Amino acid sequence: MSFYVYLSGEIHTDWRDEIQRGADAAGLDIVFTAPVTDHDASDAAGDHLGKPENGFWRDHQSSKVNAIRTRTMIEQADLVVVRFGDKYKQWNAAFDAGYCAALAKPYITLHSEDIIHPLKEVDAGAQAWCTTTDQVVETLRYVLKA
Amino acid sequence: MSFYVYLSGEIHTDWRDEIQRGADAAGLDIVFTAPVTDHDASDAAGDHLGKPENGFWRDHQSSKVNAIRTRTMIEQADLVVVRFGDKYKQWNAAFDAGYCAALAKPYITLHSEDIIHPLKEVDAGAQAWCTTTDQVVETLRYVLKA
Amino acid sequence: MSFYVYLSGEIHTDWRDEIQRGADAAGLDIVFTAPVTDHDASDAAGDHLGKPENGFWRDHQSSKVNAIRTRTMIEQADLVVVRFGDKYKQWNAAFDAGYCAALAKPYITLHSEDIIHPLKEVDAGAQAWCTTTDQVVETLRYVLKA
Amino acid sequence: MSFYVYLSGEIHTDWRDEIQRGADAAGLDIVFTAPVTDHDASDAAGDHLGKPENGFWRDHQSSKVNAIRTRTMIEQADLVVVRFGDKYKQWNAAFDAGYCAALAKPYITLHSEDIIHPLKEVDAGAQAWCTTTDQVVETLRYVLKA
Amino acid sequence: MSFYVYLSGEIHTDWRDEIQRGADAAGLDIVFTAPVTDHDASDAAGDHLGKPENGFWRDHQSSKVNAIRTRTMIEQADLVVVRFGDKYKQWNAAFDAGYCAALAKPYITLHSEDIIHPLKEVDAGAQAWCTTTDQVVETLRYVLKA
Amino acid sequence: MSFYVYLSGEIHTDWRDEIQRGADAAGLDIVFTAPVTDHDASDAAGDHLGKPENGFWRDHQSSKVNAIRTRTMIEQADLVVVRFGDKYKQWNAAFDAGYCAALAKPYITLHSEDIIHPLKEVDAGAQAWCTTTDQVVETLRYVLKA
Amino acid sequence: MSFYVYLSGEIHTDWRDEIQRGADAAGLDIVFTAPVTDHDASDAAGDHLGKPENGFWRDHQSSKVNAIRTRTMIEQADLVVVRFGDKYKQWNAAFDAGYCAALAKPYITLHSEDIIHPLKEVDAGAQAWCTTTDQVVETLRYVLKA
Amino acid sequence: MSFYVYLSGEIHTDWRDEIQRGADAAGLDIVFTAPVTDHDASDAAGDHLGKPENGFWRDHQSSKVNAIRTRTMIEQADLVVVRFGDKYKQWNAAFDAGYCAALAKPYITLHSEDIIHPLKEVDAGAQAWCTTTDQVVETLRYVLKA
Repeated sequence: MSFYVYLSGEIHTDWRDEIQRGADAAGLDIVFTAPVTDHDASDAAGDHLGKPENGFWRDHQSSKVNAIRTRTMIEQADLVVVRFGDKYKQWNAAFDAGYCAALAKPYITLHSEDIIHPLKEVDAGAQAWCTTTDQVVETLRYVLKA
Repeated sequence: MSFYVYLSGEIHTDWRDEIQRGADAAGLDIVFTAPVTDHDASDAAGDHLGKPENGFWRDHQSSKVNAIRTRTMIEQADLVVVRFGDKYKQWNAAFDAGYCAALAKPYITLHSEDIIHPLKEVDAGAQAWCTTTDQVVETLRYVLKA
Repeated sequence: MSFYVYLSGEIHTDWRDEIQRGADAAGLDIVFTAPVTDHDASDAAGDHLGKPENGFWRDHQSSKVNAIRTRTMIEQADLVVVRFGDKYKQWNAAFDAGYCAALAKPYITLHSEDIIHPLKEVDAGAQAWCTTTDQVVETLRYVLKA
Repeated sequence: MSFYVYLSGEIHTDWRDEIQRGADAAGLDIVFTAPVTDHDASDAAGDHLGKPENGFWRDHQSSKVNAIRTRTMIEQADLVVVRFGDKYKQWNAAFDAGYCAALAKPYITLHSEDIIHPLKEVDAGAQAWCTTTDQVVETLRYVLKA
Repeated sequence: MSFYVYLSGEIHTDWRDEIQRGADAAGLDIVFTAPVTDHDASDAAGDHLGKPENGFWRDHQSSKVNAIRTRTMIEQADLVVVRFGDKYKQWNAAFDAGYCAALAKPYITLHSEDIIHPLKEVDAGAQAWCTTTDQVVETLRYVLKA
Repeated sequence: MSFYVYLSGEIHTDWRDEIQRGADAAGLDIVFTAPVTDHDASDAAGDHLGKPENGFWRDHQSSKVNAIRTRTMIEQADLVVVRFGDKYKQWNAAFDAGYCAALAKPYITLHSEDIIHPLKEVDAGAQAWCTTTDQVVETLRYVLKA
Repeated sequence: MSFYVYLSGEIHTDWRDEIQRGADAAGLDIVFTAPVTDHDASDAAGDHLGKPENGFWRDHQSSKVNAIRTRTMIEQADLVVVRFGDKYKQWNAAFDAGYCAALAKPYITLHSEDIIHPLKEVDAGAQAWCTTTDQVVETLRYVLKA
Repeated sequence: MSFYVYLSGEIHTDWRDEIQRGADAAGLDIVFTAPVTDHDASDAAGDHLGKPENGFWRDHQSSKVNAIRTRTMIEQADLVVVRFGDKYKQWNAAFDAGYCAALAKPYITLHSEDIIHPLKEVDAGAQAWCTTTDQVVETLRYVLKA
């Protein structure tokens, strides 16, 4: 059966495509899933249900619609990759990591060296820490083919 | 029996004391728990086991020692309060929120209005969002006494 | 140790007091818990967090605050009594029954004979169906003392 | 793999067909499941086992047979839609919602605006509230295709 | 997907075949599973591992080998049918019923009317009680096709 | 804290008293629990709710009331002792054993040598098989004091 | 569907091939999975992430990468075979057995007679103890085909 | 409430006493539990049930009696310390570590530096690795008092 990998976190660079291309090149049988990565669409995920004037409730409504997708995908995944980029708070990525930790779902992190310290609790629950998408692909190759 | 509340997140202001004082003033039977809030002690939690030269492994070792304390306390808690302050990334706070969400452990968030948007996934899983410690105390009072 | 009984549902008659008095008279060691039964206070449970203009979000906010109390109590209970009165929809009572069923938490129902048919799925998951508070007390007495 | 959606609740209007048609038109890969929606057949689900004279036990027997079908389908579902119509008590719909809540199974509600208040606990546990079947279809489209 | 039904209990009559034939005739998409029903083979299930002299340990060894098969099948089943015949103690059938009850796995019983009383706890946890294999088939037909 | 032992099964001999006396003599800190052992009271456990004419439903109603007591006690127990006597079918005892097995709750059996073979599946899931109440007491003594 | 068997433990003899060949010869529909059995590759599983100087952290890093593979495979398995050879400590094999025991995942052991005593706790949680790969194959044949 | 620590593994040195004394000296509120550490008593744990001639079954019987004690204690523990000494295989210690890992129960290991490599999978799942009992005590002190 295919191996399922959910790609959580940063949506402003093409790291998901890099991993997908690397896995394809390595001939790995992986189904990659992800949250909706179109920022505006994601913010508006609940607007068709009526758009609350208050910013908090609009965000609340959209986030709960997004969670239908993301929690199902996380629970189906055999492995989750959590990406922290250089910009933005990305608390949702840390939230997903905590969610995985509580479910004993294996996850690996992908972030640069300069944010090791603030991510130490997130990394402590991870199976591996990668700094490049090549390392993620190599990890997947090892797990599936070695 | 007493109600257990774990106070997660920011360690640079005295919000935990404010909640404790408010709960005492209201006569609530609550046991408050928290991570080690001495920043230096927390960073050095694993140093007595031998201090790795590499920063990553030192953080790793300390975080896993801290997790013995924090995960036990989160699992014992009836409610978790997750605080996001104005400074620092506080990914550990978001991690704790995700951990609670996966366990179906109720949690409430405490943060100012200007970070509603980046916290929308974290707030979407919460039972309530407070902006002041008074609101946290009032929520506790309602839950326990009303 | 004491036996915990959560009394769910209708808040417009004094059925909870009747059961409490009956259990006291029978000398049973039971801790009874309940949702906040002051209707106005319950509807306003979240108003201290800022009252949304829209009725839906005000109800949403208050219900989530109430759930901190009710879900904790249901999970602590050894038995849940779910009361359906003659008035109102009481979908929250049926919701609590479904919640118990999924958790394999034993519950009994308390309702008159004329609503047997619409409650058949709720009763099918219950350990017993009572029509009077005396029957509830007698059931408790049997479970604890016989 | 296909996405499974269980359609719970009201059986007197054709809302299930509307959602099915909308999902087909949108090209969504969804398997819809439902309880037996023929009211008389459902009430008689257990009659082939011998029909108890007493109304309570006939209902009890049939409901337990129906539950073989409904609980299996709810547990297989990735998402549950819970419909509350204008007529009837529909406590079984609220029961299913509570069942989902306890299993952390995502569900959305479908009901008109005039019953927001009595459904507030049910809506508080839902990922979204829809008033039309078009909104349900749009939510499904977003979750699966956006 | 197919519906899985595990047929537990009595191995001295051909009730399994009757149900299989009835389900085939009704065109139901069901995969039936069962323990090893050859009595001598079942008793000797562990003999290839060395046959203990003592009767207790021989039975112990064989039962644990059989459990590899039966527990896996019970856990994969959507429904379990538990048959109590007229002869033998069949404690293993009651054991399987209790196992299902604890897992919230739906099961139905199949036994004649004269053993209602000693089976009352087993029947109390079942979704239905049948006296004939035709009733079992009709129940399956209803659950899958009605 | 005290050790909880639930004594399941046969109700026609005084084996429960023997174990209780033996444990007292050995100074063991054990709380023993048990089902209602007055046969007539147990059969009538649900009669105060209205006595169904049909034997099956009367038994059904009483068994479900009894289960409020027994399942709570089994789940609270650290160890369950399941007794099979010389008379009666005692399918409820085997049911309790299966229930424990599925919950990974340790249980030991107590029965004479001549029913080893029909009880082989029940014994295969047990932590120990005793033939005398003295052996049960000695096992408890070892577990708690050695 | 296929039966999944994870082959845990010793990596210095060809016992996995023997079982595979025996199962093929017997025509069994089994998917066998295993850890990475190339010793050097396994020790280096995390080296592509940067090789820590300290031996402990290199082993730590590689073991956590290996665990992505092994825990997923153990959780997917219907049965685990745990092999203890004549050399090496093989604590990882005993670790896998304990992991299975806690998950109620059936496992069988494969080891020679002279290490019965030190393996007694591991064997006590197993469904069977084999001394030869032929016995393992015969057990699989019985479970799947008898 | 007190913190529960289960001390698993080696029984031939007085490491348990050292930890107990250290914790007492530090004024920590800890309840320490352990398996039966009298080697001969442990091997004979099941002999009062009849001593099987065959060594395998005697060990089997005793191990299952011991497991009543050890599994209950592990499940009650907030933290498990797993000790690997210089002698013996101590597969039971590795088994306990795997058992903890699957339950997400935090554990720490205690062993000398020369067995890092064969214990790498066991250490990978641990929260900390200690080489001295002083380090264990310091870890406990930090977790409970810092």
